[in-house]
Formats: sequence, C-alpha cells, structure tokens
Amino acid sequence: MKPLILVTNDDGITSLGIRTLVNIMQTLGDVIVVAPNSPQSGMGHAITIGEPLRLYETHIFEGVVEYECSGTPADCVKLAKNYVLHDRKPDLIVSGINHGSNSSISVLYSGTMSAAIEGAIEGIPAIGFSLSDFREDADFSHGVPFIKSITESALKHGIPKGVALNVNIPMKSDEPIKGIKICRQAHAKWQEKFDYRVDPNGRGYLWMAGQFVNFDTEKEDTDVWALDHNYISVVPCQYDLTEYKALKQLETWDL
Amino acid sequence: MKPLILVTNDDGITSLGIRTLVNIMQTLGDVIVVAPNSPQSGMGHAITIGEPLRLYETHIFEGVVEYECSGTPADCVKLAKNYVLHDRKPDLIVSGINHGSNSSISVLYSGTMSAAIEGAIEGIPAIGFSLSDFREDADFSHGVPFIKSITESALKHGIPKGVALNVNIPMKSDEPIKGIKICRQAHAKWQEKFDYRVDPNGRGYLWMAGQFVNFDTEKEDTDVWALDHNYISVVPCQYDLTEYKALKQLETWDL
Repeated sequence: MKPLILVTNDDGITSLGIRTLVNIMQTLGDVIVVAPNSPQSGMGHAITIGEPLRLYETHIFEGVVEYECSGTPADCVKLAKNYVLHDRKPDLIVSGINHGSNSSISVLYSGTMSAAIEGAIEGIPAIGFSLSDFREDADFSHGVPFIKSITESALKHGIPKGVALNVNIPMKSDEPIKGIKICRQAHAKWQEKFDYRVDPNGRGYLWMAGQFVNFDTEKEDTDVWALDHNYISVVPCQYDLTEYKALKQLETWDL
Repeated sequence: MKPLILVTNDDGITSLGIRTLVNIMQTLGDVIVVAPNSPQSGMGHAITIGEPLRLYETHIFEGVVEYECSGTPADCVKLAKNYVLHDRKPDLIVSGINHGSNSSISVLYSGTMSAAIEGAIEGIPAIGFSLSDFREDADFSHGVPFIKSITESALKHGIPKGVALNVNIPMKSDEPIKGIKICRQAHAKWQEKFDYRVDPNGRGYLWMAGQFVNFDTEKEDTDVWALDHNYISVVPCQYDLTEYKALKQLETWDL
C-alpha cells in the first residue's frame, strides 16, 4: 500500500507553494490535502476556540482528495486526523512549501511549522518545508529534488518519535544548492519597528515591521548559517519547552 | 526606583484575571498594561502580519497607564517594548492570570504563555500565571499570596536568561494549596472530537472539543501531577525547539 501523505500549509490552499508540494507528494504516495482557505502566516500554534470551523471539499488539484478549512494550520491537522481521516492515520504530514523562511526563531511564529509540530504531538512523522522567498510567485524549482529526497528518507528511516523536521531552502540564485545540513535553531530574534499612520477617519493605526537579528553569527552549526551559505537546513524540532537546566536553580528560590 | 512591570494577558483587558494581576503588581512596582481588546485564547505565538494594529489608551484600572490593542498577546509585548516604552525596558513581564490551565502541552496553544515567552526572547524576565478554572467569574483569591511571593522571588533572584516561568494554580477548593513545586512539562496531548452541525442556511460547521490525555501519569515531577495534588506548578520554559538528541540520528540518513 502506498503511504498516505497529508499536505497542509499556512499560505492558504491556492498558493503556489502547496501546489508544488502536492505535485511532489503525488510521486511518493496517496495525497490528501486539508489546508486553510485564507493566508494564515504568523499564526504560530493558534487553534480556533470559541467559534466553529467550516470545512468544504474543493477541486483545485488533480487526483487528490482535498478540503479547505476556515481555521489555522494546527486546526487543519486536528481536523484531518480526527474528523476527515478518522479511520486511517496518515503515514506522513508535510506542510508548506512556505513562501518565506521559517529558520531560527521564526519557527515559533510559523503556522507552517506549527502544523508539522501538531503532527509530532500526534506521533505522526512530519516535515515543514519553507523557501527563503516570500513572494507570491517565488521560484520553488531548485528545491524540488531535495524536498523529494528528504521526504523519501523520512519515509524510509522514520522520523524520531515526537520530532518534526524544519526544512528551509535558500532562495533561488545562480549558484546551485551546495547540499543539506542537519542544524540546530540559531539563537536570534526579530527586532520590530512600528510605523504609525492615520486612517482617513482620523484614527491611528500601526504597521509592524521586523528586522532579523542573529546572535549566533560565529557558529557554523545553525540553520541561519546553512541558509546564508546556500545549504538547505534541516532542524529536528520537539515540543517540550521545559528548560531542564533551570530546574535546580529555581529550587534554590525556596518558594 | 520601583521596578517597571508590564502586564498583559490573552483573555482581554476587561477580564477578572488581569484585574487581579494588576492589583497584585501595584503592590510591587510601577505597572503598565498593554493587553488585547478582545479574547485571544488559543492564539499560541501568533503575531499580526499583513494587517495593521490599533492601540488605544484606556482607563479601566486605577493609577495605571494602560493600552488596549487589537492584536495578539505576542503583539502586545512587541508593541509595549518597541513602541509604548521605547525609552525604558520593563524589569518584568507578567501575563494572565489566565482563566484556565496552561499546564503541559497547553503551553504551545496558550496566548498567555506566548506573551511571557516573547519576553524571554527579548531578555526580559517573564512569568505567565494561569488558574485551572476557565469560568469568567473564577475565584482567584487563594492564588494571590503565591503570585505575590513568586513575583517577589523573581525580582529578587532574577529569572535565568531566556527563560519564562509557566505558573499554574489549582482551582479553588476546600483544601488549602499545599505549596509550590518546580516541575517539568508533562508529556500529554489534547484528543479532539469534532461535533458537526448545520446552520439555519443549511451549511455545515464543526465545533472542536478536546479531552486532555496525560501520558505521564506515573511520574511525580510534572506540572500536571502537581496540579492534581493541589500544588502550584512552576515550569521554566525556553524557546529553542531543537531536539539535540536527534541530530546524530539524522546525520545517518546521508542526505
């Protein structure tokens, strides 16, 4: 039996990134798509509480069972597993291809990666794919053979239990991709600036804009280093946020 | 100089939980509030991309500078630090008190904790407080002295860099709180069920409902164990999702 591959994303079901990913996955298994009906970038691990979800079958891709959902990427995985596919567990969840990088700290804000981590929580092997190019018409072509080989490896070897892979692909350039690096998440943050404007009704509003600040520039084992040097980065991600090193220190507080 | 304490939450600026937290913090320092203007439960680490934010000064609390924001809890922290307070860094960020537990896996879905983790990313000591009672009129009174003493300890000792504390308080009962436990995040998940209904226009919709499943029932060092035994749980949380133990295993894939 061919593996059952669930595809989702955060840019919405009509984006070029998910279309590219569906095309690749159709060469590797049976594909089902459950993806948001609108862009959900920056949604992090949000889920829909307090209002209901809409879920409709659509016909965007050829030869694929597909649904669009009014919720977040994490909602899509929960719906796919517990409602759409209730009698069969997917063998793999892939999310993306995101229009824009999800390296380093962006993994926290990323709907793409939260869908993959939701898979890891469910014990399903999961991979999030992102391209360092946020344009709607981004060129994904140079990443295709790598996405295929990483997915084949994951199906063959199995991803460690409770882990989701965060795969980032450099923007297309004249130089060919140098290869694939297994990395850790770079220590970095976004430094925001807010741009104050006034609407035609005289009320103020603010645009958030961010600049990426990397504190890890001297290390060569990070995802940001890999991308900067034209490698594809693969970071294994888990969801236990406990800082074990701090447990003893907190015990000394005598609370 | 008194410490500057930034207060936010995810239930919205008019909730009883944030009012309780503001009252406590006013006994410990200068308080500024930047909180969502509507409930943001389950928003995880979402940020607002692609649309602008509204920020208005309000006058709900006495003796406090306060703003309500149209964005998520993480947006509130970014706005407070980079726009409202651009000339002074808060000495502490507190988030909550959440109406409902944020123990174990719920930390990922929690707007309350994402605001605190956003503080940790900024290098600001941060604590998220939650009560295991999601009712609007939940009784927070038994938690007040503990919230005060934990905050005083954090101001005195300093929270380890890059760490935010996830503090959960058991629901009020006849039995007094037994004490405070330093814990790790329990290994657990939410098992969702979807309830299909049809609206008056004949279109289907789905309600998500979840049941908490704890895989860690035999261990006594988890936050869920502490809460079940009427202790307050304190979990130090960090934001590097890398699963370091998996790096070597992935190297064997020969990608």
